[in-house]
Amino acid sequence: MQMDFLELIGLAAGCCTTAAFFPQVLHTWRTRSVADLSLRMYLLFTLGVVLWLVYGIRIGSLAVTLANAVTLVLAASILVMKLVYDKSPRKGSGRRSK
Amino acid sequence: MQMDFLELIGLAAGCCTTAAFFPQVLHTWRTRSVADLSLRMYLLFTLGVVLWLVYGIRIGSLAVTLANAVTLVLAASILVMKLVYDKSPRKGSGRRSK
Repeated sequence: MQMDFLELIGLAAGCCTTAAFFPQVLHTWRTRSVADLSLRMYLLFTLGVVLWLVYGIRIGSLAVTLANAVTLVLAASILVMKLVYDKSPRKGSGRRSK
Repeated sequence: MQMDFLELIGLAAGCCTTAAFFPQVLHTWRTRSVADLSLRMYLLFTLGVVLWLVYGIRIGSLAVTLANAVTLVLAASILVMKLVYDKSPRKGSGRRSK
């Protein structure tokens, strides 16, 4: 029972750190504004998640593999939006929507 | 040797996903601009890291504990800056410094 509760904490932790990127994806998708996002952060983070994914697959951990597969899609989406929207400069200060 | 290489991948993965938050902390600290950062992301992510930290301590894993302790400091710093700088509205469009 003690062990079950501990594993539940681990599961909740994984859900939180993975699901956390959803609101950022939605926020960036809606605003098309990426100036405050650090390119280096998302480059390094995406690389790290790829390595976690390789690690999860190689150690045969479904939890590590699945969590990092979802996180990779989300983090890579933010990275791509950062690269794309940074290249299309905002048309004046009124470009930012809401 | 095969196992060593695999553990090296895991170590590199942990370093990347933890270190990734450094550039965002610096970026936000320098610009004082947080509009593009999702508050929900950093609330959820910080909660997740706290849970990972509890999990790491309880399972007695130094790697999980250490990595998440560092990540917690960085993610919490971004969260605090988001809350503080969002409350002090920019004085016109010239507020954003470089």
